[in-house]
Amino acid sequence: MTDFAWTREQFHIPLGLIYLDGNSLGPMPKATPARIERMLTEEWSEHLIGGWNACGWMNMPMRLGNRIGRLIGAEDGHVVIGDTLSIKVFQAVSAALQVNPERRVILSDRGNFPSDLYMAQGLADLLDRGHELRLVNPHELEDAITEEVAVLLVTEVDYRTGRRHDLKALTRKAHDMGAMVVWDLAHSAGAVPVDVAAGGADFAVGCTYKYLNAGPGAPAFIYVSPEHADHCEPALAGWLGHARPFAFEHGYRPAEGVERMRVGTPPVMQMAALDAALDVWDKVDMRKLRKRSLELTGLMIEEVETHCPGLKLATPRDNDARGSQVSFRSPNAYPIMQALIDLGVVGDFRAPDILRFGITPLYIGETEIREAVEVLARILRGALWDHPKYQLRKAVT
Amino acid sequence: MTDFAWTREQFHIPLGLIYLDGNSLGPMPKATPARIERMLTEEWSEHLIGGWNACGWMNMPMRLGNRIGRLIGAEDGHVVIGDTLSIKVFQAVSAALQVNPERRVILSDRGNFPSDLYMAQGLADLLDRGHELRLVNPHELEDAITEEVAVLLVTEVDYRTGRRHDLKALTRKAHDMGAMVVWDLAHSAGAVPVDVAAGGADFAVGCTYKYLNAGPGAPAFIYVSPEHADHCEPALAGWLGHARPFAFEHGYRPAEGVERMRVGTPPVMQMAALDAALDVWDKVDMRKLRKRSLELTGLMIEEVETHCPGLKLATPRDNDARGSQVSFRSPNAYPIMQALIDLGVVGDFRAPDILRFGITPLYIGETEIREAVEVLARILRGALWDHPKYQLRKAVT
Repeated sequence: MTDFAWTREQFHIPLGLIYLDGNSLGPMPKATPARIERMLTEEWSEHLIGGWNACGWMNMPMRLGNRIGRLIGAEDGHVVIGDTLSIKVFQAVSAALQVNPERRVILSDRGNFPSDLYMAQGLADLLDRGHELRLVNPHELEDAITEEVAVLLVTEVDYRTGRRHDLKALTRKAHDMGAMVVWDLAHSAGAVPVDVAAGGADFAVGCTYKYLNAGPGAPAFIYVSPEHADHCEPALAGWLGHARPFAFEHGYRPAEGVERMRVGTPPVMQMAALDAALDVWDKVDMRKLRKRSLELTGLMIEEVETHCPGLKLATPRDNDARGSQVSFRSPNAYPIMQALIDLGVVGDFRAPDILRFGITPLYIGETEIREAVEVLARILRGALWDHPKYQLRKAVT
Repeated sequence: MTDFAWTREQFHIPLGLIYLDGNSLGPMPKATPARIERMLTEEWSEHLIGGWNACGWMNMPMRLGNRIGRLIGAEDGHVVIGDTLSIKVFQAVSAALQVNPERRVILSDRGNFPSDLYMAQGLADLLDRGHELRLVNPHELEDAITEEVAVLLVTEVDYRTGRRHDLKALTRKAHDMGAMVVWDLAHSAGAVPVDVAAGGADFAVGCTYKYLNAGPGAPAFIYVSPEHADHCEPALAGWLGHARPFAFEHGYRPAEGVERMRVGTPPVMQMAALDAALDVWDKVDMRKLRKRSLELTGLMIEEVETHCPGLKLATPRDNDARGSQVSFRSPNAYPIMQALIDLGVVGDFRAPDILRFGITPLYIGETEIREAVEVLARILRGALWDHPKYQLRKAVT
């Protein structure tokens, strides 16, 4: 059994569905319901308040953080789980700005996920000290890193096109210019090998409900490099980031290291689901995953370009420059995606003209790619009425 | 069957346990595991990304908010679920400060929960515009509300003593002085009838894992009065608080009303657990609950003062001035509580000298109160060795 035959068996995928949207919400690991049931009926219901210690809930944010740390190349003890990605963006950008108090530019690109931009703009508005959120096009980003820039806020893999930034090169350029870097790894963690330590990232954030399969609304993570971990201000100074939360002091003193980035009480059910999801990830070799991902994204590009001449590739052909998704442009992207979903091939539409397909080797293989493209090609040719998927669909509805 | 015989049957309480810590973490409703199982195996696993619409996940923060709104006297559509209480404190205080841009004092009292103070101080530090977090003793609070005060940040029921502030009177005084008020209802929601609308509260926040029984790390809620809901800035400007989140615009525009206080992707499993917990609360008459709560807290005070002469009451005797917990002071509070817990009577110790007992009529009655006090009295007299609970404890360990 190959590595990915094993992983495929770990997920529940509804019969007949080709799920190419794991970059939006990953499917459920088969082990998750039992893990949650245990958290409910053996932990919460039996231990009640005692569960925070007896069942290890209080330390879960750090323990789970370490397991994610392996996937993103973090030093041990430098990743912590909690809150949402947007909240963690706010903390990271705020902390990064403190390193450069004289500078006023937060630089990002128009391919960044909007919530990152909203949170940065909200922070700038709150500070009211003349910070500018400067947006350039993704390919102009490197040249836009100047000595004006306080913080570079960048999502490694573009949520629409799948274009991947060069984390190491952009970080080096930023540091040469005296800027701090916050990497958003939402479409990187579990998608491509990341090495935040070797790449010199100052801060990194990400979510766990996409490639990591921890379920809807799963918590986010934040990485703070050893250089900043004991100095940065968390901005959102919650009690669980306090050096002694249960001393109930009136004044705030940050905990040592990344744990200061904790805020309030963490979501134990969602953490239990992340725990179950990471049981799969613990066994995944990220280099093998990347190799497989490139084979599959390459195949998807090849198949679509052969069979779907109306679609224009939006994802870079260069292997190094793409994440683990493939996107195409079409003026009819929205209705095409609705037809695909109706026929059991689930991708995503992103306004105004993007068809986006997440390619997730843990549970997607060549067969699914070929079948998906066949359905897509038939939709485009208006020749799907005799296709088995259409017949099946009409039979059940 | 009385109202509270019915509610008692809705919870799982381990055999032999007297659980007087539901003001820290409520016990599990019996219906919760099935609700979560359904969310996992019928919703997430079958609908995947489609669950956000098909299963109503996206609207849960508002739907659940409305159900909590009934418990706190909010206008319909003015409460939304999400994040943690600390995060919601930050948003509320930040929004309240904007109404009073010329003033520099955030007033609170030393009985407030520390995380509220930390978040407010963190906000003041971030703003760096000379805001002062001014702390007074709880009984000095009303007099300390002057025209200097921008925001009064106050927890209605003190987490240590159970002392209850007069929401209506303090709000009136604050408004007379031109100050905004943020009420923390962590120990109020599900504990006492609250009427934020009639009381004139500007903002209110609270958590759902205490009296509301939604489980460890359950999400928080925030109320914004109709006067502010369409004007306030959320400070944490996440995409799900955007007027059109799925347009993926580069610039932030807040949603109408309280929905702008949403930040990132909400925790669907935890919301499903809250959903199950609120199925009980939907049937609870808060006036009847309050009547029962006062009977039980009154009984607890009477029993302890009769049988435990060494303990000093820390909770007000005046019915109007207490929430739904009873606390006592003792220099030996810590070891006494450890002995109680060991014998299956679970309360809480709060530094330096508080024994705290949450009195929750949904699943606690007179029998439990009397038994708990008997065990407590025996511990204090050093005469528990022949008590059935001690015998049982020694038999099983």
